[in-house]
Amino acid sequence: MPNTGASHSITLRLQMNHQPGLFARATEIIGTTGGNIGAIDIVKINKGKITRDVTVDTSSDEHKQTIITALSNEPGIKVVHSSDRVFLMHLGGKIEVNSRFPLKSRDELSMAYTPGVARVCQAIHKDPQLAHNLTIKKNTVAIVSDGTAVLGLGDIGPEAAMPVMEGKAMLFKEFGGVDAFPICLNTTDTEEIIRTVKAIAPGFGGINLEDISAPRCFEIERRLQEELNIPVFHDDQHGTAIVLIAGLINALKFVNKKPKDIKAVVAGVGAAGTACTKMMLDLGLKNIIGLDRTGILYPGRDNMNEEKQAYAEMTNPHKIQGSMDEAIKDADLFVGLSGPGVLSLEQVKKMAKDPIVFAMSNPTPEIMPEIALPHVAVMATGRSDYPNQLNNVLCFPGIFKGALKCRATSITEKMKLAAATAIADTVKSSELCAEYIIPGVFNKDVARKVARAVKKAAK
Amino acid sequence: MPNTGASHSITLRLQMNHQPGLFARATEIIGTTGGNIGAIDIVKINKGKITRDVTVDTSSDEHKQTIITALSNEPGIKVVHSSDRVFLMHLGGKIEVNSRFPLKSRDELSMAYTPGVARVCQAIHKDPQLAHNLTIKKNTVAIVSDGTAVLGLGDIGPEAAMPVMEGKAMLFKEFGGVDAFPICLNTTDTEEIIRTVKAIAPGFGGINLEDISAPRCFEIERRLQEELNIPVFHDDQHGTAIVLIAGLINALKFVNKKPKDIKAVVAGVGAAGTACTKMMLDLGLKNIIGLDRTGILYPGRDNMNEEKQAYAEMTNPHKIQGSMDEAIKDADLFVGLSGPGVLSLEQVKKMAKDPIVFAMSNPTPEIMPEIALPHVAVMATGRSDYPNQLNNVLCFPGIFKGALKCRATSITEKMKLAAATAIADTVKSSELCAEYIIPGVFNKDVARKVARAVKKAAK
Repeated sequence: MPNTGASHSITLRLQMNHQPGLFARATEIIGTTGGNIGAIDIVKINKGKITRDVTVDTSSDEHKQTIITALSNEPGIKVVHSSDRVFLMHLGGKIEVNSRFPLKSRDELSMAYTPGVARVCQAIHKDPQLAHNLTIKKNTVAIVSDGTAVLGLGDIGPEAAMPVMEGKAMLFKEFGGVDAFPICLNTTDTEEIIRTVKAIAPGFGGINLEDISAPRCFEIERRLQEELNIPVFHDDQHGTAIVLIAGLINALKFVNKKPKDIKAVVAGVGAAGTACTKMMLDLGLKNIIGLDRTGILYPGRDNMNEEKQAYAEMTNPHKIQGSMDEAIKDADLFVGLSGPGVLSLEQVKKMAKDPIVFAMSNPTPEIMPEIALPHVAVMATGRSDYPNQLNNVLCFPGIFKGALKCRATSITEKMKLAAATAIADTVKSSELCAEYIIPGVFNKDVARKVARAVKKAAK
Repeated sequence: MPNTGASHSITLRLQMNHQPGLFARATEIIGTTGGNIGAIDIVKINKGKITRDVTVDTSSDEHKQTIITALSNEPGIKVVHSSDRVFLMHLGGKIEVNSRFPLKSRDELSMAYTPGVARVCQAIHKDPQLAHNLTIKKNTVAIVSDGTAVLGLGDIGPEAAMPVMEGKAMLFKEFGGVDAFPICLNTTDTEEIIRTVKAIAPGFGGINLEDISAPRCFEIERRLQEELNIPVFHDDQHGTAIVLIAGLINALKFVNKKPKDIKAVVAGVGAAGTACTKMMLDLGLKNIIGLDRTGILYPGRDNMNEEKQAYAEMTNPHKIQGSMDEAIKDADLFVGLSGPGVLSLEQVKKMAKDPIVFAMSNPTPEIMPEIALPHVAVMATGRSDYPNQLNNVLCFPGIFKGALKCRATSITEKMKLAAATAIADTVKSSELCAEYIIPGVFNKDVARKVARAVKKAAK
């Protein structure tokens, strides 16, 4: 039976004859078809009929249909309608824009709007730096996407990307207290994206680039950071890298190895894989071997673009060639940012003593924890249903909170490493174990600590 | 003594010797220097000293200084500091982005963000129209400005325009329940503005253009409305025109004249004046005479651009020439969108019986009400401190609320006239009088009625 969960949750409105045992029969049907029952509410009772709303976690659209069909086939039970709770939650969008104080009297209106506001405008006109204090620029980030690399869905376009960006804005506020607004772009042209973001930048204190496909994301980020004086941060690259490094710091502590001594294999050298590799080098790793679909990257290999050539030159010191079988031998660390099945059990067994496996492909890791776990010292994934979830939400709210507080103009390597260290340090030495190398996503200390560390590192 | 008000309000922290009569002396000084005392709070009392915060409405920065100096010169009174209440209110900006529901558990996270959100994204990817239901596009407007024509301040740039746009966003929410987000642009190039707004449009249900100088505003609005399938509305033009027409409908009712019979003079034929004239023609006026700084507009006059030539051709049926003295003779209506002093008392006296004067220049009207009132039947201005305030806030929250509700792709002339009529109708026949031709800005019925009328007219 596949996993049921809230992400496939439905509310069934069931009308039943008011007879003893029939509701028990309904719950039995839901149970035997694999549905997981949550809240049950009585909607109404009349004329010998009782209507109930039953919330059921399912595993897929097909699964929902199976449950509904089974219920409908039972005499005395009618499925009046079923509503998808995820879609219900999205009706009208997930965020809103509110006033920070009431606007109920003429006096308030004359201070927040004309004529009082004119003096504030004039003050900023004289000294544009005041915008950081007297406007929402102080605490507001644009979440910019062109919808080309959304979750595992790929190029779905700007409208379809909005729900993800709205969700991200919720996380910014919930965890970092940062106001974030989604800007989904009706263009995928590198120059047009750069121009647009530069044009809308005056009202924002930072730019979070999101789900923009490689290799365009590299140039877009680089150019925007050069041409704007507010931080520009491509979360898919650096957020992922920072959280990986946080996990790695603690995993190495747990297995008692040093960064400079270990051999690491990185599967997947796209935007995230490249950023992770760069931060691993910054952490002190000397021996990193990267692989794409063709195999190990080494200088002069066939089938490489400019980015991969640069990657090959900064890694693979012994210039080894071949496939995963060659790369994984005696490796202390596997970092997966590729896809399901990239790492086999046999390959895990060829790793060094106390191997660390970070299988971050989502939703299906490079190797499933139940397979790898008996043979590794530490295992982490991107999933919430296994221990050690490497999730960007541990990073982006805090890093922007810190950067905005100190009016940083960019997010430096030093600030990133400080963020990773702060995340790692949230796990106390006394708590550190194979199943707890990284704090949970709902740990409210994380963003606060990250922000403080980032602010300090920015000075 | 000039008018004091909350828009020049300060809080003075006064430390005084704790002796009878000294605080009375302080309030006397504030009074004789023209300050208007509001709240008084005791901050602390110790060692024979008492510290109070005194809120004082003043009329200008110089006035503040006069009051502070007078207080400081008094033995036993020390002004510890003074803070400007308008600036205090603007610290950190005036709006924020919030989640519409809490995000506290893994279940909520898995529905609002990954993995649940993916199903919503896929649904929109299949049918982009669903974005109007499942994202903030349903109820969100971009307030777009390049900061070139802000209030009476002119071209102050995008950063300095932000406080006005944030204030506007507050009004959208407060009066229309519409989420609005300010986008201030770091470009004044017509093509670049058009490109940028088109690029960011996917997440918005409407575009409110604001404080963009003429003549660029005409092409920007026209092109965006042609190329986007969401409403584009330049509030400085159409919001002003709609509120003017609302006032005009009631004023004509009050003086018992018909649109087709009256002679109207429009001083100032920029963006707002042109839009007002077009709506007056739509309302049925036949005889409108426009004036710019050069004088009356007639076809073939010198010193006219393309817009003014078009204006001359659709107005001035008798092709009269000259200045305000010639234009105003026997006019039933004066509409001022120009500047202080444009209309003299002598000119008012030359108008027809029961003249209507809408002197909308802000903050100083074309003629002050105290001068004109004895000689006119109805007088309206843009100011809150006289009767009949013609204020755009009566229009834009309701018109967008209505347009968003019915997913209008543009705001048509019919919708605009419906909005004007709905505003006018908020004043009941039994209430209509010279001092009450237009509802007050805090009348909550207005936006609701405008939205309903606009929705109906859109069908």
